[in-house]
Amino acid sequence: MPRRPRLCIHTITTKPWSTEDCIQRYADAGAGGITFWRYNLDNRDPAQVGRQAREAGLDIVSLCRGGFFPGASAAARQASIDDNRRCIEQARDLGAPLIVLVCGAVPGQPLDESRKQIADGIAAVLPDAEAAGVKLGIEPLHPMYADDRSAVNTMRQANEICDRLGSHPMLGIAADVYHLWWDPELEQQVRLSAELQRLFAFHICDWKTPTTDLLNDRGLMGEGCIPIRQISDWVDQTGFSGCREVEIFSNRYWSMPQEDWLNQICSAYDSLYA
Amino acid sequence: MPRRPRLCIHTITTKPWSTEDCIQRYADAGAGGITFWRYNLDNRDPAQVGRQAREAGLDIVSLCRGGFFPGASAAARQASIDDNRRCIEQARDLGAPLIVLVCGAVPGQPLDESRKQIADGIAAVLPDAEAAGVKLGIEPLHPMYADDRSAVNTMRQANEICDRLGSHPMLGIAADVYHLWWDPELEQQVRLSAELQRLFAFHICDWKTPTTDLLNDRGLMGEGCIPIRQISDWVDQTGFSGCREVEIFSNRYWSMPQEDWLNQICSAYDSLYA
Repeated sequence: MPRRPRLCIHTITTKPWSTEDCIQRYADAGAGGITFWRYNLDNRDPAQVGRQAREAGLDIVSLCRGGFFPGASAAARQASIDDNRRCIEQARDLGAPLIVLVCGAVPGQPLDESRKQIADGIAAVLPDAEAAGVKLGIEPLHPMYADDRSAVNTMRQANEICDRLGSHPMLGIAADVYHLWWDPELEQQVRLSAELQRLFAFHICDWKTPTTDLLNDRGLMGEGCIPIRQISDWVDQTGFSGCREVEIFSNRYWSMPQEDWLNQICSAYDSLYA
Repeated sequence: MPRRPRLCIHTITTKPWSTEDCIQRYADAGAGGITFWRYNLDNRDPAQVGRQAREAGLDIVSLCRGGFFPGASAAARQASIDDNRRCIEQARDLGAPLIVLVCGAVPGQPLDESRKQIADGIAAVLPDAEAAGVKLGIEPLHPMYADDRSAVNTMRQANEICDRLGSHPMLGIAADVYHLWWDPELEQQVRLSAELQRLFAFHICDWKTPTTDLLNDRGLMGEGCIPIRQISDWVDQTGFSGCREVEIFSNRYWSMPQEDWLNQICSAYDSLYA
């Protein structure tokens, strides 16, 4: 039994480590789960990586990331659909029950158009996901990423896409406090998503003041302003019993000895959920 | 008659220039309006600055900025109210019909509490604003500023505060495309705000990809992904006939010869509204 059964770590959080190092170190730290990023599978057999993780005692929580459906041309959009199909195969082989979707956006393309292309792209790959037994989780991204990473920026919008696609049981939402904490509708949308059986994943980290980089200056839980425990309680109150996934992009932390960094993560996690 | 009657420039856009330089150069460029920042009034008589601007042929559009109502202590909140009262006096003496409110936030304080303190702070100074004949415009700030600059991050929230304060005729909204462009409700909220006589101001600039600094890397109109003309048309379709206010914080542009920068602004404005 892992000592921290609901702690999952995203491998990108310790980016300097190899796939194998992540598996071993997270298991040693007593984490219950691991979320792989696709680069972890480069030049590796996904099935074997999956076996290694399970043998180390880790649940594979998800594979990050699919998505990026919008494109300026039909060819670009088809290439993205093809890549998402490869991602679904990888997740199936890995034994990951879920792919997190960063939905995409094209700078200068109207957001409405990107949102339509996102719904179309997801619709195109949903049958593949269902056949593979892999769920798809739309991750609404912070509005500061609406230019080139995601035209889906709130849980409400993610829910609207799920509605539009007929509330397919394999399509849901990955909620990340970093992207959503500011939203006055968050509590209500968490509850709604759970009622609709769409709350597939829960990611944590913190928002630093000041934030010096739009991408790679996320904070460790407790060093920022996000009411993580409150949001986490809202999530748990819906009956959610999945992992709390630590996903931190940080130039500062990536430059540290990663063993020390992992110790800090475990301490912060323990303080948060004490 | 100014050659660009609906062009207003925020003095902070050409931060290296003195108050007097801004007045003269904007008038020479054919701008119809000027929005002063409070630092422009340091060691100056607001009434005289106002006269200078009007004599140069410029309308004074607003004074930036009041607000920052939330505080960790009652004393801090009272100090903010006192400062907003001074700001109202300055606006009155300057002859500015409007103060733009950056509402404030305290890192780590629950956003709900900050929002309540914002409504309380505005309620405290509204009688002063009314007595002085100065309107107050809530500027919803991009969600990336929810930590320490504003707990009001959408037009919907700004409208809710206006509702809560009884739809006071001196309280409305300053809409800035930089903060709002990503919001799927934007068109609807622009229309609603105008119907309720609350659309007091309209600010323009652009969102660059990538954006390298959360504060001071705004783009010139046309170099980013914001559908400025579309949003501007939504605004005009409500009957709004006020200025389009160029407000650009940019380390890059501030380091240029400001005369060249002003020429670029005028060209970009002309292209946008050709």
